[in-house]
Amino acid sequence: MSEAECVLITGGAGYIGSHTTIEVINSGYTAVIIDNLCNSSIECIHRVTKILGHKVPFYQCDVRNKKALQQVFSKHKIAHVLHFAGVKAVGESCRKPLMYYKNNMECTFTLLEVMREYEVFNLVFSSSATVYGVPKYLPVDEKHVTGGCTSPYGRTKYYLEQMMYDLAAADERWNFVLLRYFNPAGAHPSGEIGEDPSGPPNNLMPYMAQVAVGRRKELQVFGSDYDTPDGTGVRDYIHVVDLAVGHVNALKKLSSKCGIVAYNLGTGQGYSVLDMIHAFEKASGKEIPYQMAPRRTGDVDSCYADATIAQKELGWKAKYGLTEMCEDLWRWQSMNPHGFNPPQENGDCLPNGHAK
Amino acid sequence: MSEAECVLITGGAGYIGSHTTIEVINSGYTAVIIDNLCNSSIECIHRVTKILGHKVPFYQCDVRNKKALQQVFSKHKIAHVLHFAGVKAVGESCRKPLMYYKNNMECTFTLLEVMREYEVFNLVFSSSATVYGVPKYLPVDEKHVTGGCTSPYGRTKYYLEQMMYDLAAADERWNFVLLRYFNPAGAHPSGEIGEDPSGPPNNLMPYMAQVAVGRRKELQVFGSDYDTPDGTGVRDYIHVVDLAVGHVNALKKLSSKCGIVAYNLGTGQGYSVLDMIHAFEKASGKEIPYQMAPRRTGDVDSCYADATIAQKELGWKAKYGLTEMCEDLWRWQSMNPHGFNPPQENGDCLPNGHAK
Repeated sequence: MSEAECVLITGGAGYIGSHTTIEVINSGYTAVIIDNLCNSSIECIHRVTKILGHKVPFYQCDVRNKKALQQVFSKHKIAHVLHFAGVKAVGESCRKPLMYYKNNMECTFTLLEVMREYEVFNLVFSSSATVYGVPKYLPVDEKHVTGGCTSPYGRTKYYLEQMMYDLAAADERWNFVLLRYFNPAGAHPSGEIGEDPSGPPNNLMPYMAQVAVGRRKELQVFGSDYDTPDGTGVRDYIHVVDLAVGHVNALKKLSSKCGIVAYNLGTGQGYSVLDMIHAFEKASGKEIPYQMAPRRTGDVDSCYADATIAQKELGWKAKYGLTEMCEDLWRWQSMNPHGFNPPQENGDCLPNGHAK
Repeated sequence: MSEAECVLITGGAGYIGSHTTIEVINSGYTAVIIDNLCNSSIECIHRVTKILGHKVPFYQCDVRNKKALQQVFSKHKIAHVLHFAGVKAVGESCRKPLMYYKNNMECTFTLLEVMREYEVFNLVFSSSATVYGVPKYLPVDEKHVTGGCTSPYGRTKYYLEQMMYDLAAADERWNFVLLRYFNPAGAHPSGEIGEDPSGPPNNLMPYMAQVAVGRRKELQVFGSDYDTPDGTGVRDYIHVVDLAVGHVNALKKLSSKCGIVAYNLGTGQGYSVLDMIHAFEKASGKEIPYQMAPRRTGDVDSCYADATIAQKELGWKAKYGLTEMCEDLWRWQSMNPHGFNPPQENGDCLPNGHAK
């Protein structure tokens, strides 16, 4: 690139968004972050500044706030958008489906409208392996049927993917890379940023890290009677820095006028909950007390990726393994036992960016 | 009922909404209509008044206008909602998918939020046989798999149905009757109201009627190589008054705390495009010139209902046949050659109720 292209990053103060911001900038792009800080912290933005050695333009606003979004597009010459903004807890989505549909879909509708208005037609969408529903075969490749999702959260991702296919069919100016994440884990090797859920973590790794650091008494293992080698759920954990790098490769793909394409971002390797506990115990030197608990609604037995298409078409492959994920997670958690801020319960995301 | 229950009718100035308003009021309910008049006419409201002999409270506002909707719920003690509002042209939805997703989903999100706020948990949703996608068997019953829709319009209906299933699972106060319409046709026997599309009609019957009345030169028959007896598409046409009566039965079902249930509203009888042309020629005494044209994107060969579950559980059955549909349609069209108003091209629906 002669002049650095500018990438708008929605949800850039979140877990994956913040790690991706760093990789995007380190790859020669400039970036602008929008985040309503509904489920993230301004301190994360400060840490990103610290890691990079300079500030990244940041707007605290909700993507559903059309006027605010238009101002961002007016002020910056955006070339691509990485769309991370959204709510993402499977269990919560079953309890609050309307909030999930409303947040995730409305913010995407507004974003796409404003992009079209400003003639920005390149989007990387944060999708999820959950769009495959209960896997019919393993490893799951991109040809696997989508739909049949097991939670409202998953359905929002699937429906938005489908809408993007419709948009790409209707108007050839659109380019979409749908990145179907498997299970992001780990943290930036600096220990400055990492996953910091507000309220009790919904995912294994941050929960385990909070147990190790003394914030939670013990881990609950949801389901010990799954059809897997040790009975606990098997997932494809991927280092968040690997995932972040995958977005940089996706940006290059967009520049090739790709139309709409979907890629799995995973390692191709499945690990059980017990595998993860043992690896994390080793990395942290802490014992993780755990207790078996019933299955959670919406969870599947096993899910891991066939990631060969991403390697072939994006030139991307995960570099880091379980050891780095656990070591980097532990560095982040032990350096920041309470994450970015004192703990706070999570609430509904409102368009003004305040939690209810 | 001791005191008449009040039914909010969104999209009540539209084709199905207006006919349903009459049947609802004639069954002893009171009604309130909301319509943004984006794809309908105020004259339709005047005609409803004429047929009933009294006015029905009418608010010209978009269902996405949350404050306006809250005012309606504050002013009227709503017991049930019939939700017709939405954009509905299959072909247009393929060209303007974002507009379709945004309109149909956002207005439903807003409606459900406001209903919950005012503790109104009874909704009849205007769904469509299109949620079944390409039928795997005929007649299509309610157990037929849903999804695999062939247009963005169909996907909006399917996704909203799924969201309502999620809501009903999360909160048992909700009661939803999903009415899956087959092909509404005909008009009120008074000839005062009927289908009045803005711009060229997307559906066979109103197009044919406009040809008969001299507004259009000839009919295009989309697809003559379908796997049907005469090669033209086969559909289950249902008289709009029958359809309207089905909504009254659905209101009674809601009062029984039904949770979420789905019913086909069709006659169970499939007719081809050529069957319809011949029947309409007979009813109108006019010759309908037609020309064969290529298939339209998103159309299926044949689709007709198994309507026995609606008969069993709603106590509802279509009374009228092809003759009444054609005669009533012709009465409406010949009494109102230009519909409610001088012709006007259709545009995007905006939240303020104005067409773009």
